[in-house]
Amino acid sequence: MTAELERLFVHLRFPSISTDSTHADDVRANAEWLKGQFEGIGLATELHETPKHPIVIARNEYEEGRRTVLIYGHYDVQPVDPIELWDSPPFEPELRDGKIWCRGSADNKGQHFVHLLGAEKTIQEEGGLPLNVIFLIEGEEEIGSPNLVPFLEKHKGDLACDIIAVSDTGMVAPGVPTLGYGLRGITCLEVKIKGPSGDLHSGVYGGAVANPASAAARLVASLHHDDGKIAVEGFYDAVIPLEEWEREMWSKVPGAADDDFLKTTGASAPFGEPGYSMAERLWARPTVEVNGIGSGYQGEGSKTVLPAEAMFKLSCRLVPGQDPDIVQQQVISHLENHCPPGVSIEIEKGHSGKAYHNDPHSKFGKAGQAALEKSFGRAPVLIREGGSIPIIQDMKEILGSDSLMLGLALPDCQIHAPNENFSVENFEKGIEMSRALLRELAK
Amino acid sequence: MTAELERLFVHLRFPSISTDSTHADDVRANAEWLKGQFEGIGLATELHETPKHPIVIARNEYEEGRRTVLIYGHYDVQPVDPIELWDSPPFEPELRDGKIWCRGSADNKGQHFVHLLGAEKTIQEEGGLPLNVIFLIEGEEEIGSPNLVPFLEKHKGDLACDIIAVSDTGMVAPGVPTLGYGLRGITCLEVKIKGPSGDLHSGVYGGAVANPASAAARLVASLHHDDGKIAVEGFYDAVIPLEEWEREMWSKVPGAADDDFLKTTGASAPFGEPGYSMAERLWARPTVEVNGIGSGYQGEGSKTVLPAEAMFKLSCRLVPGQDPDIVQQQVISHLENHCPPGVSIEIEKGHSGKAYHNDPHSKFGKAGQAALEKSFGRAPVLIREGGSIPIIQDMKEILGSDSLMLGLALPDCQIHAPNENFSVENFEKGIEMSRALLRELAK
Repeated sequence: MTAELERLFVHLRFPSISTDSTHADDVRANAEWLKGQFEGIGLATELHETPKHPIVIARNEYEEGRRTVLIYGHYDVQPVDPIELWDSPPFEPELRDGKIWCRGSADNKGQHFVHLLGAEKTIQEEGGLPLNVIFLIEGEEEIGSPNLVPFLEKHKGDLACDIIAVSDTGMVAPGVPTLGYGLRGITCLEVKIKGPSGDLHSGVYGGAVANPASAAARLVASLHHDDGKIAVEGFYDAVIPLEEWEREMWSKVPGAADDDFLKTTGASAPFGEPGYSMAERLWARPTVEVNGIGSGYQGEGSKTVLPAEAMFKLSCRLVPGQDPDIVQQQVISHLENHCPPGVSIEIEKGHSGKAYHNDPHSKFGKAGQAALEKSFGRAPVLIREGGSIPIIQDMKEILGSDSLMLGLALPDCQIHAPNENFSVENFEKGIEMSRALLRELAK
Repeated sequence: MTAELERLFVHLRFPSISTDSTHADDVRANAEWLKGQFEGIGLATELHETPKHPIVIARNEYEEGRRTVLIYGHYDVQPVDPIELWDSPPFEPELRDGKIWCRGSADNKGQHFVHLLGAEKTIQEEGGLPLNVIFLIEGEEEIGSPNLVPFLEKHKGDLACDIIAVSDTGMVAPGVPTLGYGLRGITCLEVKIKGPSGDLHSGVYGGAVANPASAAARLVASLHHDDGKIAVEGFYDAVIPLEEWEREMWSKVPGAADDDFLKTTGASAPFGEPGYSMAERLWARPTVEVNGIGSGYQGEGSKTVLPAEAMFKLSCRLVPGQDPDIVQQQVISHLENHCPPGVSIEIEKGHSGKAYHNDPHSKFGKAGQAALEKSFGRAPVLIREGGSIPIIQDMKEILGSDSLMLGLALPDCQIHAPNENFSVENFEKGIEMSRALLRELAK
């Protein structure tokens, strides 16, 4: 095992579960250890306290006239339940089959540690870094980064940068370097439908009173046309269409054909907005998705009840052009206008975040592409992601800088699930990618 | 508290939930106790074993040349969920506001126990019963009486009777005696919708894969037109229309105006098949009702999941003319034909029972009317019921006898729901009604 891997293993052994207050000391110990690592390579490092978990900031000496890159990551991890499904203990890293098995290996310790090691090697071999570098490694990403926006706002002068680098996403397939340049946004809603004052006997009262479960189903059904297109008025109005080069590139991305997505998801057939491939639907088209629905008796056997209430949870994934507040209001108006007679509707607004999008052919986009190509030996594919990383849009708004998403996690990396893993090859190539990135960005 | 009420309370304390196998011993203990009650009033009593829960049979000595009445009831009860909505523990009977609050108080322990007490008083005061009486109290009504039909067929000679009396229905309003002459039938289905092989992240995969929760909602919505009429092909074809005298009588039944039903149910407006009053919809028109629907995350807060599965439970109430097997198949065909693409559907057939209907102006119908008039002090109203007691149709077919439905439950009795209750006044008048019935039927 290399000395670099041994140091990553120490990082991985901290059970830095940010959502679990019984692990608060582990989270802090991890931050302290990480501070020592940055100090060890000669960077000026501070732990910034927040109401919860500290933020690690490390930087080389600022030189006027050079470019500045901010490298973002997070040292906190997800909980480990269901623990019985892990093949090895979640916080005892193991090497098997060319992978590092441990909670946090892919999300995100392995992915930010390559940048620390890349900086270290550069300093060792070149006597310094070719540009100003600021590391920002937070400890609250897995709980929604509640204290990062205030921190960014308070320190935005100190954190000013030309570009941000983030390795916290995925590669489309092994050996295929991937530059992400877009993320979907999100807006959430929860809906309650109320009918009779209590559950009724479906024989005694069925047929004369509106059934909230039926009303909820009619509302959910009203959100889409039969062909999968969203039926909410105005929903697509502000959507910026896909560009031709994106459709062309995505049609050739390894691992992103409809068949690949069907294999990964276990779905029997593609489904969604007509006129788009699955990759296009996932990366560039908005959704209204039911995350949960419930009403009446769901246990074993039958219970002939006419339920008093029903609920459902919706989340919309948003794409560039769409404003979360406007979309949320469009969906609310749709639901209110389509609510069937005889029941009442209550809608609770959930959290929202804008979509993010940059130009992968910009000067910095090209630098990211070059770094990926040099380290992985082939031109990267350029994709967007279906998920949401709200902090990237927050950094854009507060610091004014775009983010290069240089993901190193493979599709089977099991983040947020048992048996999380990170490829040793990607760890090693990631260190080279980070070195190349510093060089390319400095040009 | 009277001695009779105290004995009913003992009956009510048995948690005789027939659908829940963990309560099998409670169901049996309840049957044994009930056997003791019948023996205590001098009837020859047996527990008849079935593959599930025993049937209690009790009879006086048979005398040739007398009429025979079979009195039917059931000692099993519904489950108690959602238990947090009960104002007092479901199996600890309480007297409050002139009512007995307990699971099973109205459905059906309170209602069959008045007949045991009526027979007891008659024997005590008159030295015997004026006709041959057979009690049949089963323990599987709430799970569709799966073992009663084989029992009736095996014992139909022993159970031969001129008329059947059943108190397992309702009174239209307090103080208004009610003779029921019709019941809706039922047919049940459970539907599972399957999509991806596991729950998916709604960001990473949402929009490209069919969502089983949406598919379930579309299927449920497809069952009705916007105006409440059922959209299943052929569903109404065999329905026998209402007679003119019924519409006229029902328009004057106390407690059966639309406003009354709205008050009882807490619904804000009538809803259902156009062209009918609420009473007509409930008592003489068929339904398709969702008893439960569930998919994905239903807990607090948001979880951005695209669920792997969804389920819903349906029950159809049927009216005279409709064949349950045909209707069940019509609904199955409808669901299969309307299943959206990208998901698979599995349909499990539930229990079924035909609607029932007799002539309330027959000789025995008039005896029932007289018994109700004597005990409650006014002429009864003649109605059908919205609920289903499939066994009444089964007894008609196997024993050849009609059933007088002498319901004692009030509209706000909350059967099958939290806070089930039974009126103390109806309990006491029910005992008198039972005594009068024995006399009238013997004439």
